[in-house]
Amino acid sequence: MKKTNEKLKIIPLGGMNQVGMNITLFEYKDDIVVVDCGIAFPEDEMLGIDLVIPDATYLKNNLKKVKGIVLTHGHEDHIGALPYILKEVNVPVYGSRLAIGLVENKLKEHGMMGDTTRKKVSAGQKVKLGKFTVEFIRTNHSIADALALAITSPVGTIVHSGDFKVDYTPIYGKAIDLSRFAELGRQGVLALMADSTNAERKGYTMSESSVGKSFDVIFEENKGRRLIVATFASNVDRVQQVVNAAKHHRRKVIVQGRSMVNVVTTAMELGYIKMPKNMLTEINDIGKYKDGQIVLVTTGSQGEPMAALSRMAAGTHRNIQIQDGDVVILSSKPIPGNEKYVSKVINDLYRRGAEVIYEDTHVSGHACEEELKLLHTLVKPKYFIPVHGEYRHLKKHAELAAHLGLDKKNIFILENGDVLELGENGGDMVDSAPCQPLLVDGLGVGDVGNIVLRDRQKLSQDGLIIVVVTIRKGTLEIVAGPDIVSRGFVYVRESSDIMDEARNVVVKSLKRCKNSNIRGWSKIKNEMRQDLREHLWQQMKRNPMILPVIMEVN
Amino acid sequence: MKKTNEKLKIIPLGGMNQVGMNITLFEYKDDIVVVDCGIAFPEDEMLGIDLVIPDATYLKNNLKKVKGIVLTHGHEDHIGALPYILKEVNVPVYGSRLAIGLVENKLKEHGMMGDTTRKKVSAGQKVKLGKFTVEFIRTNHSIADALALAITSPVGTIVHSGDFKVDYTPIYGKAIDLSRFAELGRQGVLALMADSTNAERKGYTMSESSVGKSFDVIFEENKGRRLIVATFASNVDRVQQVVNAAKHHRRKVIVQGRSMVNVVTTAMELGYIKMPKNMLTEINDIGKYKDGQIVLVTTGSQGEPMAALSRMAAGTHRNIQIQDGDVVILSSKPIPGNEKYVSKVINDLYRRGAEVIYEDTHVSGHACEEELKLLHTLVKPKYFIPVHGEYRHLKKHAELAAHLGLDKKNIFILENGDVLELGENGGDMVDSAPCQPLLVDGLGVGDVGNIVLRDRQKLSQDGLIIVVVTIRKGTLEIVAGPDIVSRGFVYVRESSDIMDEARNVVVKSLKRCKNSNIRGWSKIKNEMRQDLREHLWQQMKRNPMILPVIMEVN
Repeated sequence: MKKTNEKLKIIPLGGMNQVGMNITLFEYKDDIVVVDCGIAFPEDEMLGIDLVIPDATYLKNNLKKVKGIVLTHGHEDHIGALPYILKEVNVPVYGSRLAIGLVENKLKEHGMMGDTTRKKVSAGQKVKLGKFTVEFIRTNHSIADALALAITSPVGTIVHSGDFKVDYTPIYGKAIDLSRFAELGRQGVLALMADSTNAERKGYTMSESSVGKSFDVIFEENKGRRLIVATFASNVDRVQQVVNAAKHHRRKVIVQGRSMVNVVTTAMELGYIKMPKNMLTEINDIGKYKDGQIVLVTTGSQGEPMAALSRMAAGTHRNIQIQDGDVVILSSKPIPGNEKYVSKVINDLYRRGAEVIYEDTHVSGHACEEELKLLHTLVKPKYFIPVHGEYRHLKKHAELAAHLGLDKKNIFILENGDVLELGENGGDMVDSAPCQPLLVDGLGVGDVGNIVLRDRQKLSQDGLIIVVVTIRKGTLEIVAGPDIVSRGFVYVRESSDIMDEARNVVVKSLKRCKNSNIRGWSKIKNEMRQDLREHLWQQMKRNPMILPVIMEVN
Repeated sequence: MKKTNEKLKIIPLGGMNQVGMNITLFEYKDDIVVVDCGIAFPEDEMLGIDLVIPDATYLKNNLKKVKGIVLTHGHEDHIGALPYILKEVNVPVYGSRLAIGLVENKLKEHGMMGDTTRKKVSAGQKVKLGKFTVEFIRTNHSIADALALAITSPVGTIVHSGDFKVDYTPIYGKAIDLSRFAELGRQGVLALMADSTNAERKGYTMSESSVGKSFDVIFEENKGRRLIVATFASNVDRVQQVVNAAKHHRRKVIVQGRSMVNVVTTAMELGYIKMPKNMLTEINDIGKYKDGQIVLVTTGSQGEPMAALSRMAAGTHRNIQIQDGDVVILSSKPIPGNEKYVSKVINDLYRRGAEVIYEDTHVSGHACEEELKLLHTLVKPKYFIPVHGEYRHLKKHAELAAHLGLDKKNIFILENGDVLELGENGGDMVDSAPCQPLLVDGLGVGDVGNIVLRDRQKLSQDGLIIVVVTIRKGTLEIVAGPDIVSRGFVYVRESSDIMDEARNVVVKSLKRCKNSNIRGWSKIKNEMRQDLREHLWQQMKRNPMILPVIMEVN
């Protein structure tokens, strides 16, 4: 590592203290390189929100500096926000063939293929982006062709692991290029940024190929029965292992679920899935085969209510009725928050007579404690920045680095928006970048904020009551109404008393306003709202949203 | 077992294919005995609902038959609905001293102490209820004084395990009375009904006392640091073990959280928690002690947003600020669905500098596979009915019984409301009892149904738009409005265009109605609603609830 007084800025706009929305900026003088550009899935309290994308303000404010977006792999939380961000910051995107293939599926949907530049790279390749050189290094993960990055600037080299695990016997391609990490470590690495997802888990993550062995046993033990395998659409290697087992046990493969069909099609075109001829079969031809000649690969392993597996479980799938003797393999683990959905699907499948298998049919795509120690030990960085995870994961990963001997002052747990300036003599938080994530709801990007969400929350709890009254202009004389309309409050047909009482309360409020000479619509509405709120709380201990509307006529 | 042609009815009104709301009826001729009377916590889609209670219709329709309610233990999902059900069916309630103590806390809150009869029983005791004799048998669980039941009628004996585990070294009282189960088995048991919660888990559940050993290590390793232990309020034995560790390590105990204070007070009064003199300390005196002299016992182990631990983590607790060096012990496991809440609390605690320990600090209160096999083997029932669990758990438990040699036709997986008639020669589903659970929202019991919930769901996703217009009676001439009011839809101040457009759409609808001579408020409202819905979907791909209100004036 050559001595220098120069500084490099590292700016995570997402992915810190959260799962998802990974995006990190590396800035050196007039150059910015962006690593990943993912979405997050909405939190429980983000009612009605479809997805969450990172704040591009800093990029827009430094538009000329941005030299490119570099992708570590093709998962949604690393590529999903590209169609939104590229509209604002149209720069070349670099990624593996599979990652770019999946990105192109998205860009086609958004009609953006003509206006954007994609560049396919391979492990071992280097790309020059301004003063930065980005080298791609082979790793393993739950999607093929995952890449770590060595980002070299005049200040030094940053190694960014991306999402990774150490798999000595992966399905597609080779084991993680440990030798290259070792070489970089010998040459000197300024900082390591590494995946913290599994930092709390001891030991090693099992090889992807161990799942294939389980599949083989299950296929062997269930001859003659229909098999259904649910997994993540993006887990191309998992699908390949189903294909391998199907080949061995002479079954046809049927793919179900929109995202599964998309990914499998792309992966087959690009050669990531090798499917024997005549093996892939259309759902409409299912009647031509016996149960024991079929394996279905489907979405829905997270219990998503609209996914194919959930529809099969609920009995609403157009083509497939779950029947006695079916065997469903959940090749996945519930993401935190999805446990109840998954459990519902399992219960429904059992009720329809299926057997459900969910043991030894999944491995994680992320490195556990011992694998993290291996990477740290090979890379020997001067500084360490844990990435990808909630605070608890970043914290554990930081403790692991300290435990391996790194000085605590050289370990940085960052927040989204932090601007960390790194140099030979240490790191400083020098600034903060705007990082207000944008909520996407339908076609709207960013037009739903906290006030709207708070209203949705309130409406979801106790519903609402609308009070409409028409009065003579300049007076408080009622000429029509008050009418009471409610939704999500009580079942109105059985609660006419409640509605009558509410009407009386409002009439009284208006009278009082008249007698006390209270003027101004907002004041009068407030009186009505308050009286009605108190009345309902006393009567029912409920607190619906109350919306008074006053109309004036001449 | 004497030969008989007589029949016994078993009717679960709750607790089947669900976690919680346990209540089962045993009916023989003119006598009904009720076992447990619990609540369920609302499902995710039951927006705004506080709790769910069982349907008492069958009990009300057979009021004279009901001889009593027998409790297996004092958990909410076994006693929580008593205040509601006793209002309809006022019969004596039998339970252990602790269970009755906790029931009385509830009855006091509802002002029902004077009108109800509670009877305390002990393990080994028998109670005659009509033609039934109910014997109470000591078991172990995550609350002290849990009891199984042997319910004898002229048809035979039913053994009901309640919630149970096998703990050879429990904290309060003695190990489960295996000998009595064996004796009953030798005499002949018609049917076993047993806890299925952990039927999917292999091996044995660890002894409650193993947690005490972990506490001792943690207390020893963290001298001088403030300790905070979060657990279920009802886990009296767990609290006792904190007290034991506190005694050993000379710390004062402070109890936090309303339900924790209630349960600990009751348990101390009844002798279930033995607290050395001067050990229990008020929160207001915390300043008198050093960090190393204090252990707090608190609610909030499930990440419940309003519980004491969550407030500490969020920095909103009135008395306690989490500080660097605090050690928080989560002595609990997230209930499915609560994982994200718990994770949030852990993240928040770490951020405030606390260390959070959640390994080896909890054991389950339910029997795993090997313990279930033990009970089945001792009791040797003719029939088996798995209880307490989702369908997947009941199914696994049924498979376990079959695996032990029970004939499959003698195993019954029931649904809530099933009326199973058991006799010497088999069991038949003869009827079904009403079992529509009632939703409690504030003071309202049962006034929120599916329509209201569906509206809340819709409101929570895209909010609502209210269109108000006043027209001249008998015409469609607009005299005021249309006014557009929205909530939970878009942030209005930044969306005046959207509101203006919506207004235009509605004016056009009204014109069209006028020109096409469309009459009738509901038809006209429908036109307005449909036009606006299409407009918004096209513009924004959103689908808010649309509420047209038309007022008439002369």
